[in-house]
Amino acid sequence: MSHPLLEKHRATLEGALHAIATRGYWSAYNEMPSPKAYGETAPEDGKLAFEAHLGEDFALGQPGQTAWHGGEESPYGIELNVTYPVCDIDGLIAAGEQAMPGWQAAGADGRTGICLEILDRLNRQSFELAHAVMMTTGQGWMMAFQAGAPHAQERGLEAVAYAYREQRFVPHEATWEKPQGKNPPLVLKKHFEIVGRGVGVVVGCGTFPTWNTYPGLFAALATGNAVIVKPHGNAILPAAITVRTIRAVLAENGIDADLVTLCVPAERETTQKLVTHPAVKSVDFTGGNVFGQWLLDHCRQAQVYAELAGVNNIVIDSTDAYKRMLGNLAFTLALYSGQMCTTSQAILVPAGGIATDDGHKSFDEVCADLARAVTGFLAKPEVAHAVLGAIQSADTLRRIEEAGSGTLGTVILAPTRLENPEFPKAEVRTPVLLACDAGDEAAYMEERFGPIAFIVKVADTAAAIALSERIITTHGALTAGVYSTSAEVIDAMTAATWRSKVALSINLTGGVFVNQSAAYSDYHGTGGNPAANASYSDSAFVANRFRVVQRRYHV
Amino acid sequence: MSHPLLEKHRATLEGALHAIATRGYWSAYNEMPSPKAYGETAPEDGKLAFEAHLGEDFALGQPGQTAWHGGEESPYGIELNVTYPVCDIDGLIAAGEQAMPGWQAAGADGRTGICLEILDRLNRQSFELAHAVMMTTGQGWMMAFQAGAPHAQERGLEAVAYAYREQRFVPHEATWEKPQGKNPPLVLKKHFEIVGRGVGVVVGCGTFPTWNTYPGLFAALATGNAVIVKPHGNAILPAAITVRTIRAVLAENGIDADLVTLCVPAERETTQKLVTHPAVKSVDFTGGNVFGQWLLDHCRQAQVYAELAGVNNIVIDSTDAYKRMLGNLAFTLALYSGQMCTTSQAILVPAGGIATDDGHKSFDEVCADLARAVTGFLAKPEVAHAVLGAIQSADTLRRIEEAGSGTLGTVILAPTRLENPEFPKAEVRTPVLLACDAGDEAAYMEERFGPIAFIVKVADTAAAIALSERIITTHGALTAGVYSTSAEVIDAMTAATWRSKVALSINLTGGVFVNQSAAYSDYHGTGGNPAANASYSDSAFVANRFRVVQRRYHV
Repeated sequence: MSHPLLEKHRATLEGALHAIATRGYWSAYNEMPSPKAYGETAPEDGKLAFEAHLGEDFALGQPGQTAWHGGEESPYGIELNVTYPVCDIDGLIAAGEQAMPGWQAAGADGRTGICLEILDRLNRQSFELAHAVMMTTGQGWMMAFQAGAPHAQERGLEAVAYAYREQRFVPHEATWEKPQGKNPPLVLKKHFEIVGRGVGVVVGCGTFPTWNTYPGLFAALATGNAVIVKPHGNAILPAAITVRTIRAVLAENGIDADLVTLCVPAERETTQKLVTHPAVKSVDFTGGNVFGQWLLDHCRQAQVYAELAGVNNIVIDSTDAYKRMLGNLAFTLALYSGQMCTTSQAILVPAGGIATDDGHKSFDEVCADLARAVTGFLAKPEVAHAVLGAIQSADTLRRIEEAGSGTLGTVILAPTRLENPEFPKAEVRTPVLLACDAGDEAAYMEERFGPIAFIVKVADTAAAIALSERIITTHGALTAGVYSTSAEVIDAMTAATWRSKVALSINLTGGVFVNQSAAYSDYHGTGGNPAANASYSDSAFVANRFRVVQRRYHV
Repeated sequence: MSHPLLEKHRATLEGALHAIATRGYWSAYNEMPSPKAYGETAPEDGKLAFEAHLGEDFALGQPGQTAWHGGEESPYGIELNVTYPVCDIDGLIAAGEQAMPGWQAAGADGRTGICLEILDRLNRQSFELAHAVMMTTGQGWMMAFQAGAPHAQERGLEAVAYAYREQRFVPHEATWEKPQGKNPPLVLKKHFEIVGRGVGVVVGCGTFPTWNTYPGLFAALATGNAVIVKPHGNAILPAAITVRTIRAVLAENGIDADLVTLCVPAERETTQKLVTHPAVKSVDFTGGNVFGQWLLDHCRQAQVYAELAGVNNIVIDSTDAYKRMLGNLAFTLALYSGQMCTTSQAILVPAGGIATDDGHKSFDEVCADLARAVTGFLAKPEVAHAVLGAIQSADTLRRIEEAGSGTLGTVILAPTRLENPEFPKAEVRTPVLLACDAGDEAAYMEERFGPIAFIVKVADTAAAIALSERIITTHGALTAGVYSTSAEVIDAMTAATWRSKVALSINLTGGVFVNQSAAYSDYHGTGGNPAANASYSDSAFVANRFRVVQRRYHV
């Protein structure tokens, strides 16, 4: 019954199943970009593989190709010049639909085995993928490797494990035997077939082209659906490499490779036509509110799993580790220049200041100390470049400039432009810190994506908790934090997050940061506030991507 | 950790969990309305309990009551004259929200235990509920007892089991310990809280006020939500009895009874206001397409689980048991006068007729023989009344009259009005059979709820299978059937149902009927065609009704 690839990767699957059930630490893929883990030649091979794509047509052998299209601009300023196949939408959809029955026939075991093989192969391409992620997103190398390759693969594996668990609950067949007193029983034989909903579309984002794409991609794929990957126009290469590998593994295993295709539309209307096509039954999206809301409003024929904007926030009530709190926050604000959907934007501090192990700190002192912590953390250029990376988009550069001009609040820390000697054309900026009053809602109560954070003066801790809840309920958030030495305050903040439905990090002062989310253990998004209607990962993320079609007859 | 009521009912829960995993026959509640099963005095006690409601105000002690409202008209013509509390919508919602934290604190174990106790108590009220269902819906007594009480309770228990299984996968807490090479590991303690999405509304239908209400009601309740039950205006009593029992069990167990309330709106606009209220996060609906589509279009703030209209159909290719096939179809068409969402409406027969064990039968012979089978089956008045029950609504009476007039097709079997000596005012009708061509789509390709069936002449079996698929893909269906002695035909029909996503019954000739759906074993609806976007029950029916909110901190 089982599939050879399921047997080959059974230990990985069992590990993932155990991890999602216990939610402790576990990993399948090594997060260190080291030759020890990936092989002596892996770093160099991966770099060469990446460089081999530059300036070339990225052939995929997809049906209905009409043109080549590229245009990615690296935030590091290097020339990419890769072009990708532009294919007719109807052709991609028809090809995906045609490939689905064979994928259905592989069964949950076969699909799971093949998905595990795909992930294993992607893992071996981690250096190639990391370079592609780094150069298209502006992430620093370490983040590009970790978040772009192994961590993204873990999130993909997590989705496969959830999908496997839910599909495994559906028995292949059953004998239904109902007693009829003294008469012979009624006996029916029943068969239960798992059938994918239809073609899935995964719309990627410009900052995390693999980490935010793999969950939906593998959830849809493992549950029996064809998938069309529509990457962000500036981060196509990591998706293209992924799709090419998937297609190769599918073909090796007798599955029509057109089950998974890449859609690089030359025009915006093409994407709208794609996601509203009647045959498209699921859309996974990560990105801004405008297009996200458009998808939710218009893709009524599909299940839409959307991660949108939010206003992540942190309540500071008190701390017994002031210095380490500031260090933790400084790292959070600086990491990838705040270009993470999990970065804190609003830090809520009581007007009367806070109690710390270093004595009472006024509101202004907290502002100044946090600014100093950020500056200090980024003092060494090599640290700064490794952590900040580069600014991914012109929009973010504009937002930094606007914030730095002081129109949104008092500038506590002005952004500076850093020169990256390795990449002279890279746009590198240090974070902007602004102070404002709780009443200045127009300033801080909308997502300002990038390295822009507000220290918001609130009446007191209770008001801060209430404000946090209101921000999240109305504008959404993927993360919330609290610093307090009081159990009552932590309990009140906990209860507030139950109502606003956001993950809470409490008193983070060490090597874990509010913007980090670990596969198998941390739910990324709760699906219960406006920032996301789904979570990586839970049963709900996979269970409605397939349907069960039964048949029954007398025996 | 566990809850006393979970322990009390553990065997029932374990039985249900095993049943949903294996999908064989299992039942928790006895389906025979016998004193042996329910106690010597149960039948009489239940009848008296039902009669005690008649002509009375049905007090529930809900907040914000402003009036009493009734108006149910029994299809059996008896006087009901029960009135129910009309309560302010905002008050019911606010009371439900206020009750939710206590329900959340009970945890999955506590909620499951209390739901199991509720179902046990409802089971003891089976005779009372059966009379209420019979007299409000027009079902015959046996169906009213079985579908109205034990079978509805099984569907409720099924939803509780699914909800328990999904919630049980979420650990209460975890220690996340990430190795750091030679350095001490990063260690976080994490807590995972299951939080209901918000207030759920369950909108009932006029024909199955418990069977179609309990799945959504118990799915929403077990996963931590408050529930407002909005019954059909003509079948309030079964819902009111249910809500009263739920409120009593909640209160006995220290849970605010306002967690579950009955909404009997005096005006239609009230329902629209209720289901679109921002605090309402799920809507379960069974009923027609017009309001169902309205809900899907307007309740964007909520998850909508909708069972709508469909055009159930059967393909007849050939049979080796002609007489028993006709007998099976006759029962299906007659049962509760076809007023089931699972009753077949279109029977697709090749123009050239069919091969049978009784020789070749022309299309016209099949029509005549099926008409004869229905007439013969209903020849004895006591059988006819027990099976047909009464016509539930004036709309259905009008549809029968229209169909009988011959405007929709050739009348093969005209409806007749039967006198029920026990209930002289009951509106009883025998089924209408019409013949038409496949091209007469306007006639048969829309739901004509009630005892109205079409025998549709199609070119051949292949055309019948293709037509069945097209009907289901475009108009939906909860059931499909096929009769054939050919494995190829059955395979082709099976493949068609995988594409159209409908449950298939093959060659039913015995004591099981295409319109019957057994809890734990048969999925009611696939959720994959226009007749329903959800299924009783699967993981998807419960998994998105709760969210998980985590918190984490260093240890």
